[in-house]
Amino acid sequence: MSNKSSIVKRDEAAGRVASIYTELQISRMNVSLPLPSVLKNTFNVVDDAASSAAGDPEEIKKLFPKFYGQPSARLVECDPMACTLMENKSLKIGVVLSGGQAPGGHNVIAGIFDYLQERTKGSKLYGFRGGPAGIMKCKFVELSSEFIYPYRNQGGFDMLCSGRDKIETPEQFKQAEETVKKLDLDGLVVIGGDDSNTNACLLAENFRSKDMKTRVIGCPKTIDGDLKCKDVPISFGFDTACKTFSEVIGNVMTDARSSGKYYHFIRLMGRAASHITLECALQTHPNIAIIGEEIAAKKLTLKNVTDYITDIICKRSEAGYNFGVVLISEGLIDFIPEVQQLIAELNEILAHGGVDRDGVWKKKLKSQSQELFELFPEEIQKQLLLERDPHGNVQVAKIETERMLIQMVEAELNKRKQKGTYKGQFTGQPHFFGYEGRCGFPTNFDANYCYALGFASGALLHAGKTGLIASVGNLGEPVEEWTVGGTALTSLMHVERRHGKFKPVIKKAMVELEGKPFKTFASLREDWTIKNLYASPGPIQFSGPTANDINHTLMLELGQGQPAQAKLNK
Amino acid sequence: MSNKSSIVKRDEAAGRVASIYTELQISRMNVSLPLPSVLKNTFNVVDDAASSAAGDPEEIKKLFPKFYGQPSARLVECDPMACTLMENKSLKIGVVLSGGQAPGGHNVIAGIFDYLQERTKGSKLYGFRGGPAGIMKCKFVELSSEFIYPYRNQGGFDMLCSGRDKIETPEQFKQAEETVKKLDLDGLVVIGGDDSNTNACLLAENFRSKDMKTRVIGCPKTIDGDLKCKDVPISFGFDTACKTFSEVIGNVMTDARSSGKYYHFIRLMGRAASHITLECALQTHPNIAIIGEEIAAKKLTLKNVTDYITDIICKRSEAGYNFGVVLISEGLIDFIPEVQQLIAELNEILAHGGVDRDGVWKKKLKSQSQELFELFPEEIQKQLLLERDPHGNVQVAKIETERMLIQMVEAELNKRKQKGTYKGQFTGQPHFFGYEGRCGFPTNFDANYCYALGFASGALLHAGKTGLIASVGNLGEPVEEWTVGGTALTSLMHVERRHGKFKPVIKKAMVELEGKPFKTFASLREDWTIKNLYASPGPIQFSGPTANDINHTLMLELGQGQPAQAKLNK
Repeated sequence: MSNKSSIVKRDEAAGRVASIYTELQISRMNVSLPLPSVLKNTFNVVDDAASSAAGDPEEIKKLFPKFYGQPSARLVECDPMACTLMENKSLKIGVVLSGGQAPGGHNVIAGIFDYLQERTKGSKLYGFRGGPAGIMKCKFVELSSEFIYPYRNQGGFDMLCSGRDKIETPEQFKQAEETVKKLDLDGLVVIGGDDSNTNACLLAENFRSKDMKTRVIGCPKTIDGDLKCKDVPISFGFDTACKTFSEVIGNVMTDARSSGKYYHFIRLMGRAASHITLECALQTHPNIAIIGEEIAAKKLTLKNVTDYITDIICKRSEAGYNFGVVLISEGLIDFIPEVQQLIAELNEILAHGGVDRDGVWKKKLKSQSQELFELFPEEIQKQLLLERDPHGNVQVAKIETERMLIQMVEAELNKRKQKGTYKGQFTGQPHFFGYEGRCGFPTNFDANYCYALGFASGALLHAGKTGLIASVGNLGEPVEEWTVGGTALTSLMHVERRHGKFKPVIKKAMVELEGKPFKTFASLREDWTIKNLYASPGPIQFSGPTANDINHTLMLELGQGQPAQAKLNK
Repeated sequence: MSNKSSIVKRDEAAGRVASIYTELQISRMNVSLPLPSVLKNTFNVVDDAASSAAGDPEEIKKLFPKFYGQPSARLVECDPMACTLMENKSLKIGVVLSGGQAPGGHNVIAGIFDYLQERTKGSKLYGFRGGPAGIMKCKFVELSSEFIYPYRNQGGFDMLCSGRDKIETPEQFKQAEETVKKLDLDGLVVIGGDDSNTNACLLAENFRSKDMKTRVIGCPKTIDGDLKCKDVPISFGFDTACKTFSEVIGNVMTDARSSGKYYHFIRLMGRAASHITLECALQTHPNIAIIGEEIAAKKLTLKNVTDYITDIICKRSEAGYNFGVVLISEGLIDFIPEVQQLIAELNEILAHGGVDRDGVWKKKLKSQSQELFELFPEEIQKQLLLERDPHGNVQVAKIETERMLIQMVEAELNKRKQKGTYKGQFTGQPHFFGYEGRCGFPTNFDANYCYALGFASGALLHAGKTGLIASVGNLGEPVEEWTVGGTALTSLMHVERRHGKFKPVIKKAMVELEGKPFKTFASLREDWTIKNLYASPGPIQFSGPTANDINHTLMLELGQGQPAQAKLNK
């Protein structure tokens, strides 16, 4: 362990914002991480078979003429004499963090840096500041060992900060070209989600089409867990975020059971897909978990969802339990078709004439939408009419679904109370867990995985690869046995029509209702509704018997079953 | 480590609600805890000097004629031959969890149980269910090794559950007497906060005055940290709760710095005193922390508080930071004299005639109250008028202070924007952290401290002591060197006049503005406002270099300085 004064010195040398480190931060900085054995030896990067696209191969081929069909690549251990990577080639590489934070991003950067230090003497690594805007504005910092040091194994994206800008217009592509030329970049690593990786591929195609030397490699980042495919088994950050949420969910469950008087409605970050909610359910066993993809597939209405929750509350009350825990995915409302319909009608009405005080405007709504609108609590009605985005559209994202559902369930329970079919007590407690999980210290899994992704990115660029997303596999085995390579970004894509044009997009990986994680959940949840089979995962540990556990979703998808738990079925 | 099937069996034997245990839960069940060396050897319980009261000694003497002035007791190691405690005396002891949950309660019970097993062969321990009501209704369970096992080192109070009932009326005292007679109890351990410990002392006095054999010992429990005195340096649960909150606060801080666009307003549980907010501030270094006791001492108004926050936001904006973290103690509003005044006037108005739609009723408010009412955001105004408790009183506790302050700060910033004195962007994110921290796995400190408190309670009852609160001291040193004893409960008391009668109460320990923790905070906070000196304590660790850290408040009060942190002052 380094002494503390040295940290201060290194930090001063880096000239960054002053910081004070806790003991755990310091102890994590000094942990040395394991590497897949292929990365500890000499290797070559070999091509696999030609690839296709996730959909619309013809259109993808038109959009990426240089890249469509390119093979994925794989690192293969080799005899030092047979290695074709030039050891003394020095590289100039840029790296950028794009989009929302995810634990482990700093380790990707550390991994690239360490790879370059070890394998390509004299290389330089530039970090673009503030996301893709940093590329366009050529805002960067040259990364040094001292600069990176205090961020090793730390959460957050604050080493470089991030941003949500996209490089889209011809001018913006021009700016990016100027920057990579100015810095004489051999390569660029884009750490981001589905949109950022699509953007990375467009950049790669653009550079290649102009015969520029700059190669581009993507890295799979998002706590939401919706960027994954066969070769990229998981996006980094998902493991840490879910474990952080599950820690507090487990605590709240113990509290609910101890006090016996609250229903906790917990909304979990993750707008597009419900992987986080599903994973947290598998870890903690709530009485109810609402998975958006299931609601959409079954075409359920908001009233259906309210009734489902209310029915369980009534059953639990009869069993003597006036407490419980309900998990709700953040994007729930987006999965309900009738809500989408109402929003569309509201946008139309608000754009033309607006609403009057006496509610005559409501007659413009279709009858289903009118019914739904009346079902909403007053506050939500107000929110729907008042909160608009800059384009004048209703802002669904601002609706606090957990509070809305508490009110709707309460109203339904009151009805049943009057009818005499419910005699319990109901007090709802709303929670939203999101920001807490995006910037925690990466778990050992995320720390190791990201470090390997960083090494992979370095190796792929060293081998002259471009248009690939770094992929590390065989994750159910010890780190030494992990496989390392890169997957053709075009193979993850299909097209969507936007504003009359075909746009390439990486297909979001939604919760598969036929997949192992959902099926496991579905087979257990009935038992969880009435019995209180709460499980408490506790705080993330960096040492001790649980330190290297992997999340349930990944374990199940790898066919390895759920992590060990002591069960009792009565 | 025991194998998992044995847990299932034991659990079935106990006939309790089925549970599924995570790996960490199981690993924590099997940890063996260190004990103060005096508890590992033979000891005698010796008396200290006579005690007095925290205030109004004459009145306390009248209320506790049997106990007033009784000495505190201390365990002193002795030669086995000199030990006066009878080893073969078997005892019948009851234990009850009272009030809100705090991490470690299960370990107190385990400590009592293990003490009885080790030192008093043939003893029985009964757990009363559902708090003090369990005593009155004689609802109990006989605790066995198997029953207790799955709760060792686990959070929550779900082994017995808790309740907020008090044993107050003559009939209730009668019920308690019947129960302890029926069970032939030699002793009763009351695990609770200030009210519950006052109640414990009243019970002890009552039993003694009727020449009953049942002795009563209290244990200092509350995450709020407001039950402490010279001999009882800390209440259990405070350490774990603050570390749990600080973990998520640290994560949110890293997120704020990474994204650079949100102001997080975080309200922290702890109504009466602000110890939790102060401790979390010392651990994490927020830009702003509002300590209720300081607001009260300086007689600040809500407008003052709003301006204080707004001023800092403006200064930060000029320095280029449109993000930040603000900690607010849950009881903030209770500390503001003008708010108390407004509430009193509102209660009066609502009781006599109520309010009219046109707001004529507002003229009944004194001018200061009128001004304050107008300062509140509309939603809060509505809440003040609509939400009432069963006695028709305004419910201040329901006001979500973090949301209210965001709205008030927003309004003030808008004014300044129009004047041109503020040019930044402000987006507030409200958080409330409370339930998450009450039921976490106890930290090593809380686990050890509670186990020692349990042993202490057992030893004091074994020695025939009553009317004491278990006290474990010298906490800054290794567990082996901790001191063990009991402090006269009457020495913690003073009287309050309620309904024309003197009532004994344990004086709540508020944040002392002259104490070391607040002074340390006050000396650092100026630096925290503009610089972003955020510190991230990370998740609670049970092994590794940080596992045995103690919270800052206790370290500072023990005169040991803050826990080590690497600092950088620029």
